Amino acid sequence: MDRRLLEELLERFRRGETTLEEVREELARMPFHGMGDVVVDTHRGLRLGFPEVVFGLGKTAEQVVRIAAALTERGSNVLVTKLQADKVVGLRERFGPDAVEHDEVAGAVLVRHHPVEVTGRGTVCIVAAGTSDLPVAREASFTARCLGNRVEEVFDVGVAGVHRLLHHLPGLRSANVLVVVAGMEGALPSVVGGLVSRPIIAVPTSVGYGASFGGIAALLGMLNSCAPGVTVVNIDNGFGAAYAASLINREFGS
Amino acid sequence: MDRRLLEELLERFRRGETTLEEVREELARMPFHGMGDVVVDTHRGLRLGFPEVVFGLGKTAEQVVRIAAALTERGSNVLVTKLQADKVVGLRERFGPDAVEHDEVAGAVLVRHHPVEVTGRGTVCIVAAGTSDLPVAREASFTARCLGNRVEEVFDVGVAGVHRLLHHLPGLRSANVLVVVAGMEGALPSVVGGLVSRPIIAVPTSVGYGASFGGIAALLGMLNSCAPGVTVVNIDNGFGAAYAASLINREFGS
Amino acid sequence: MDRRLLEELLERFRRGETTLEEVREELARMPFHGMGDVVVDTHRGLRLGFPEVVFGLGKTAEQVVRIAAALTERGSNVLVTKLQADKVVGLRERFGPDAVEHDEVAGAVLVRHHPVEVTGRGTVCIVAAGTSDLPVAREASFTARCLGNRVEEVFDVGVAGVHRLLHHLPGLRSANVLVVVAGMEGALPSVVGGLVSRPIIAVPTSVGYGASFGGIAALLGMLNSCAPGVTVVNIDNGFGAAYAASLINREFGS
Amino acid sequence: MDRRLLEELLERFRRGETTLEEVREELARMPFHGMGDVVVDTHRGLRLGFPEVVFGLGKTAEQVVRIAAALTERGSNVLVTKLQADKVVGLRERFGPDAVEHDEVAGAVLVRHHPVEVTGRGTVCIVAAGTSDLPVAREASFTARCLGNRVEEVFDVGVAGVHRLLHHLPGLRSANVLVVVAGMEGALPSVVGGLVSRPIIAVPTSVGYGASFGGIAALLGMLNSCAPGVTVVNIDNGFGAAYAASLINREFGS
Amino acid sequence: MDRRLLEELLERFRRGETTLEEVREELARMPFHGMGDVVVDTHRGLRLGFPEVVFGLGKTAEQVVRIAAALTERGSNVLVTKLQADKVVGLRERFGPDAVEHDEVAGAVLVRHHPVEVTGRGTVCIVAAGTSDLPVAREASFTARCLGNRVEEVFDVGVAGVHRLLHHLPGLRSANVLVVVAGMEGALPSVVGGLVSRPIIAVPTSVGYGASFGGIAALLGMLNSCAPGVTVVNIDNGFGAAYAASLINREFGS
Amino acid sequence: MDRRLLEELLERFRRGETTLEEVREELARMPFHGMGDVVVDTHRGLRLGFPEVVFGLGKTAEQVVRIAAALTERGSNVLVTKLQADKVVGLRERFGPDAVEHDEVAGAVLVRHHPVEVTGRGTVCIVAAGTSDLPVAREASFTARCLGNRVEEVFDVGVAGVHRLLHHLPGLRSANVLVVVAGMEGALPSVVGGLVSRPIIAVPTSVGYGASFGGIAALLGMLNSCAPGVTVVNIDNGFGAAYAASLINREFGS
Amino acid sequence: MDRRLLEELLERFRRGETTLEEVREELARMPFHGMGDVVVDTHRGLRLGFPEVVFGLGKTAEQVVRIAAALTERGSNVLVTKLQADKVVGLRERFGPDAVEHDEVAGAVLVRHHPVEVTGRGTVCIVAAGTSDLPVAREASFTARCLGNRVEEVFDVGVAGVHRLLHHLPGLRSANVLVVVAGMEGALPSVVGGLVSRPIIAVPTSVGYGASFGGIAALLGMLNSCAPGVTVVNIDNGFGAAYAASLINREFGS
Amino acid sequence: MDRRLLEELLERFRRGETTLEEVREELARMPFHGMGDVVVDTHRGLRLGFPEVVFGLGKTAEQVVRIAAALTERGSNVLVTKLQADKVVGLRERFGPDAVEHDEVAGAVLVRHHPVEVTGRGTVCIVAAGTSDLPVAREASFTARCLGNRVEEVFDVGVAGVHRLLHHLPGLRSANVLVVVAGMEGALPSVVGGLVSRPIIAVPTSVGYGASFGGIAALLGMLNSCAPGVTVVNIDNGFGAAYAASLINREFGS
Repeated sequence: MDRRLLEELLERFRRGETTLEEVREELARMPFHGMGDVVVDTHRGLRLGFPEVVFGLGKTAEQVVRIAAALTERGSNVLVTKLQADKVVGLRERFGPDAVEHDEVAGAVLVRHHPVEVTGRGTVCIVAAGTSDLPVAREASFTARCLGNRVEEVFDVGVAGVHRLLHHLPGLRSANVLVVVAGMEGALPSVVGGLVSRPIIAVPTSVGYGASFGGIAALLGMLNSCAPGVTVVNIDNGFGAAYAASLINREFGS
Repeated sequence: MDRRLLEELLERFRRGETTLEEVREELARMPFHGMGDVVVDTHRGLRLGFPEVVFGLGKTAEQVVRIAAALTERGSNVLVTKLQADKVVGLRERFGPDAVEHDEVAGAVLVRHHPVEVTGRGTVCIVAAGTSDLPVAREASFTARCLGNRVEEVFDVGVAGVHRLLHHLPGLRSANVLVVVAGMEGALPSVVGGLVSRPIIAVPTSVGYGASFGGIAALLGMLNSCAPGVTVVNIDNGFGAAYAASLINREFGS
Repeated sequence: MDRRLLEELLERFRRGETTLEEVREELARMPFHGMGDVVVDTHRGLRLGFPEVVFGLGKTAEQVVRIAAALTERGSNVLVTKLQADKVVGLRERFGPDAVEHDEVAGAVLVRHHPVEVTGRGTVCIVAAGTSDLPVAREASFTARCLGNRVEEVFDVGVAGVHRLLHHLPGLRSANVLVVVAGMEGALPSVVGGLVSRPIIAVPTSVGYGASFGGIAALLGMLNSCAPGVTVVNIDNGFGAAYAASLINREFGS
Repeated sequence: MDRRLLEELLERFRRGETTLEEVREELARMPFHGMGDVVVDTHRGLRLGFPEVVFGLGKTAEQVVRIAAALTERGSNVLVTKLQADKVVGLRERFGPDAVEHDEVAGAVLVRHHPVEVTGRGTVCIVAAGTSDLPVAREASFTARCLGNRVEEVFDVGVAGVHRLLHHLPGLRSANVLVVVAGMEGALPSVVGGLVSRPIIAVPTSVGYGASFGGIAALLGMLNSCAPGVTVVNIDNGFGAAYAASLINREFGS
Repeated sequence: MDRRLLEELLERFRRGETTLEEVREELARMPFHGMGDVVVDTHRGLRLGFPEVVFGLGKTAEQVVRIAAALTERGSNVLVTKLQADKVVGLRERFGPDAVEHDEVAGAVLVRHHPVEVTGRGTVCIVAAGTSDLPVAREASFTARCLGNRVEEVFDVGVAGVHRLLHHLPGLRSANVLVVVAGMEGALPSVVGGLVSRPIIAVPTSVGYGASFGGIAALLGMLNSCAPGVTVVNIDNGFGAAYAASLINREFGS
Repeated sequence: MDRRLLEELLERFRRGETTLEEVREELARMPFHGMGDVVVDTHRGLRLGFPEVVFGLGKTAEQVVRIAAALTERGSNVLVTKLQADKVVGLRERFGPDAVEHDEVAGAVLVRHHPVEVTGRGTVCIVAAGTSDLPVAREASFTARCLGNRVEEVFDVGVAGVHRLLHHLPGLRSANVLVVVAGMEGALPSVVGGLVSRPIIAVPTSVGYGASFGGIAALLGMLNSCAPGVTVVNIDNGFGAAYAASLINREFGS
Repeated sequence: MDRRLLEELLERFRRGETTLEEVREELARMPFHGMGDVVVDTHRGLRLGFPEVVFGLGKTAEQVVRIAAALTERGSNVLVTKLQADKVVGLRERFGPDAVEHDEVAGAVLVRHHPVEVTGRGTVCIVAAGTSDLPVAREASFTARCLGNRVEEVFDVGVAGVHRLLHHLPGLRSANVLVVVAGMEGALPSVVGGLVSRPIIAVPTSVGYGASFGGIAALLGMLNSCAPGVTVVNIDNGFGAAYAASLINREFGS
Repeated sequence: MDRRLLEELLERFRRGETTLEEVREELARMPFHGMGDVVVDTHRGLRLGFPEVVFGLGKTAEQVVRIAAALTERGSNVLVTKLQADKVVGLRERFGPDAVEHDEVAGAVLVRHHPVEVTGRGTVCIVAAGTSDLPVAREASFTARCLGNRVEEVFDVGVAGVHRLLHHLPGLRSANVLVVVAGMEGALPSVVGGLVSRPIIAVPTSVGYGASFGGIAALLGMLNSCAPGVTVVNIDNGFGAAYAASLINREFGS
């Protein structure tokens, strides 16, 4: 029920043109009338200051441009994830090169309507094991930055080289929340979880071959982590991990 | 290397009783000497004000009593999870009934050395779908409370009865972090995730039969949640979810 | 918002004690006020004339009695499924032997508040392959009858004895909807589906050993049925199949 | 045994040219002679007014044209599913553009021998969550329409945006049978099943990545639906769901 | 249609009391009338000289006795497989000790109505790797003997002790068909298949632990056997393998 | 040890040029000397009159030609399976068109050194459900013929059209051994197994989509067949099934 | 062919009582005659100084005593693995308490015919993560000791407490081969593998719940280890790992 | 902390320019200062005389050249595994043809900074079943040679042709460690393990189709090997197996 209809109904009631009983019935018959804004968190993204997100996989360049245009017109920044590099040209043409930020490794693009404001309380630290995990790790760090976080990247650390990890200890411990990306046996979150006392979001990657089964080995390893405080997202879901990290990093109530 | 040994070494060096070369070698030979406190977060639990945690499954009543005694003597509260009810008697005898808090549904016990202090910033809300999920949900709420959080329980809501969930909307939205427990298709976190803008930790339960495959269906459902911001822990791991929620709910730096 | 509160609000508005703006805000702040009955189909069971359903597995005899008492007091028949035989005694004592109908093979009980009325349009035919499938098949036929259907049972037909099936052809073809129960290779629905032109709901059972994998083989067989019109429910879910069949067999709008 | 042979046999018997014993043996030796029309439902499609169905995947354009020609000559409409767009040209050339209706999103074609007549009693409602599920959802709606149903499409509703679903409530509730298409966690049928009291056929889609495992997550979610009355078809099988819905929507006996 | 009814119909036709058209319709209306014996191989067991087979698992002692009594009264020997030892007493009491042959290791019983006649052309050789596989191997040899074959047992040979296998080479090569039983890696059929030129039926057993997954490892090994001519039955299905071997070992046409 | 060396050794012994002890040691040191023909069945193929078999998948055209040339020079016919059509040209050029028989549907080629002689006792019947299964079914029939069997093909019968199968009953029953090929639910062997009393070798195919999982559904269905006497080979392994059928169809001792 | 028969044959040949041809045929007819000791490594255990090994699971106390008696009579020590504690009494009674060494945690027994001699070149180090892994770890260390190795146990180290592991570094590095036992995510071998340069044999354990799937998570983690040099044995197979370690630790040629 | 900084600190302490307390704190603040060489095995490769290893899969030709250049400049040989043939050109251009050794079948390249020195104690024997397994087997033998081992290849032996294997017995038995590569049922390591008394590392390959499931069948077969002493690496991981074999083959302490 839009505002106008509700007001008309109430006015008719005040003027005695309809009974209380009829008003009650009218209200009951129209589910969710007039209270959409309250019931439904439709503008979650905007309220949080997050960009609108478009899942680029399987969409044509034209579709992506059209959706991004509609969203920026409504005043949103737009984050496009898992977008092939050759589809970025169209975005550049439509929005101008300055408004389009492209991270090729991440396969992600930010179409900027306005500058990204840092709203996160602390730092989000993205940790990754090897070069093969970089696309997912970079998707996570790009997303985290677009969602208003200070981001620190600790790449190229692994469980079979524990010393490299230990050298990054101060950096790891200064983060408010950590996203740990790993393929193969997926053990990095457990080791990191033993070193820091902040929430850790683990992202298994599909890196590996044979019995890695496209990331299942890493996923299971992370779900069975012996370090409490580790939670897990879907395989290769760097975006989702960064999104969760951003919610954690925000001031509650903001 | 404890402090005393390090100081003796340095004093011997200052007195000229050993060479610089020998000091360097001595330091090098002893990995991590003298820097244990920095390198290793051995006292994470105590520093966080969290209790020590004992996994009760498969331990005898005697073992549990012995471990709990050792830990309380060091000044810790002790949380025992997944403990069969008949093993609680021994704990009561040893520590007295007042020091032993038992949640039978959760299968969890707190042995108190000192009162639990509320250190969490906001409320942790535990959401669960059905009576079958109660043991896991209660393990989560009991854990969250023992780890210093205000806890609100919203049980008996489910995706096939969306209205019940909507009636709890104010409560859900006032939480700082939510733990959502569900078996069967594991869809509750997605629906809740569409209604609130706070971090959600999803716990699949092994409730169900046939193609629920002991919780795999729920686990997969949660990993594929269409609501961003949902992270997942192992099947039936109410403890782990509450632990992660507690880390999120703490002031960073505390 | 219950009716009284809504009426008070509207009366205050009519008396000019509150502004239109305030009424609108008040309504918006209270999600689902006054329209619960419309939005939510809470009384689906009663409206359909279906009994309330209690999943007996894992409940104590006392719990089952208590729940059944609460539901019958609200005027419902109560169907309890997957209930162990030794838990029926308590129901008999509480409700009297005449009100308690027990199908031991099905492991199901009907606690009658009033006689079951036949509301289904046609016959629901339950087809099953072997004696091992009987518990699931009987759960389906008992449920279908309790939900107001005429039921015909065609048990002891199998794909390796196609002639027995063909002898039942007239019976199969006179049904409005068929529930086909099978374990092992789960092929019976395909064969039946080739013989009749009515909706078929296939129920895989966990009967078998080795590579039957607790019903997975039958489940996959049914999902891949070469006969169009076959839909599938969870392994051993005779109740669910009969429930779906009952919805199909009801007059639309009833 | 064709009619002529049977009549000759009986005539020879009447004329005394063969014994009763010989007739009996002759009948017995020829399985199914003379009763093919009764025993076998060969003309199911035609009797139901359904088109003949051709599974287009893996067939060449020439094969599809040839088969379609043979079937239309016998007086059938022909529905071709899962057909690549570039193979439609041949059909257009052969049957003329007016006789060939192509739904590109669905990847389906109707070759019309005669107009499709509406024979279904009520409306079939196709519900889908996201744009990625559209091909399967459209295959379902195209099929349902070709099989003689009035179809209503409710696309772009999802479990993480329950409000959008609730706005469609009147439409959902006015359907005689619903086909609910969803990928990822496959929870939409459960939520819909909690809102309506009609049969729901759930179609998991292979949409997603990582732990969606090509639709397994959605499939398991649907099989474990907490909403009774939900039945499931194979992953991506929009056609099969619509076929089952059409059988449900037909008047029994028709 | 039993013989009497058919003859009456034909006689009425000869007497002119019914028309040719009516006879044709009458015949068509009754599927399979009068030709049951031809169409359906109901007496396959008896014709082959095979005993009737009862799957003992999950049946009570009383049920087994009752079924066996019914079958022996019809003149059949009765083979009961997967029967717990304590249920054999009832069979002994009912049929007398001489008529009941019990193989405790196999968990199988033959209730004899008449002596087993050797009808197989050659020898069926049962090969097994270890003592753990004995129950399945003995089920196979007991079954093969009951179905009329000369049986040779070559137990205690394994792929990690190829020499023991080679010592049995003459025996292996003199068999007409071989049943090879193996758990763990299930490699024995491949090795045997490289040594003999007769059909080999492989039976995986559920022996093993960990990654044997209840026989899946052995099953997959056998399905991927590099020796052509190896076919496979279900895990632990010694009966099925022996049944297939018996069909192979029979004279075609017998 | 070839014959010459053995004879020299024995002669030296007879002449007293070596001691008995030395002969014994010499014999012991040389495993399998002089007894290769007995121990090892190296010429199985030739002795059985079977062609040599080359697995074409992944081999270059040149490799296939080279291997086939080497084998035909030793006097064998050569069967190449799973060979892409464009690699047949090289074989035709090398051996002449008359010597090269190509079954395009089967993806198999016979390079003939000499005519194929029928050595099988009876007919091998290849049964298949649908056009999608044809490549595997034809691989089976081509192989069976090349291995010296009379072959009968019964294609286009399926479990959802039981009548078509029943019309082929005489043909099915006249076979000595049957190979039954099916994808999807893999139920055809069970139905055929209920109609004939001869050995049945079931071949699951990878035909299907979604929950067919590349043939797993059909494989499991066949392993769990309720018809005894059915044995199974690997998915798509038409060759292996025909090889096993050929062994069964040969006279024992031949 | 035992030595006596061979010598008789050769003597007959020397005496001219048999022809060279006949000797050759006689040799050829008897596979493996006279060369058993060479061809077959029947006495591998004894030659290596390893005990005979009996797999205790599923054997009765009587069977174990009987087998152990037979083996000790042949001069072997006997190692019994996976033996329930209550079955050790019989061994003690038969062989005397001094000859029977029982490790209750490992569930393993050594029946000593003679003292175990240390034949391994270096130390075998058994590393384990937690108390739950102890039974498997102790099976490994008990086995390694019984097979003649010096054993060092490093228990209670885990990947979430990397500092504890680092404190054991000198011990780990002084081993010739390491057996690393871990459940849950199975990451310990990777971390250890990054710290030492010796062969590592990883043993996954079935410890854990939910998505540990009885050890599959740990198994996959180990197979995907990012540390080269890690090899893996079956879940819970402490014995097999120790056996492999013993082979590695022996001097080649011994 | 490098040596210079540590020495300065200690000197300042000796000179009384800093207190003991401050030295302790300084040391504690810098994790791992001055002891990097001890704690961390950074130069494992160089110390072992092993080349540096680059995983070529997914890297561009330019990346491979750049990494190889950096590593050779530090004095290492560089082994590149799983490298497509067309990427070798760049390496040849950069390092000269003499420095680049390419094994096309293995898909591996050695870029030589200095000659490979044989440091292994004995021979590493690589055993493989069929031509399809050659790429993995050759990766193993190429790796083993590059890591300083004498290598013997025994290819083209299989479990279905045990005689060929037995002919290689002397070669197999003269190896210090064996790598056994096999696809399909993966039984070769079990058979080899029964013939030799040295460590065996089994490598499953992804060769096969259907139920080989990309190497899972072989992997499970090897994990369940009935021959003790067999350990397993990931599917297709010829490199890892050779690496482990090299560690075994090195003198301990070297």
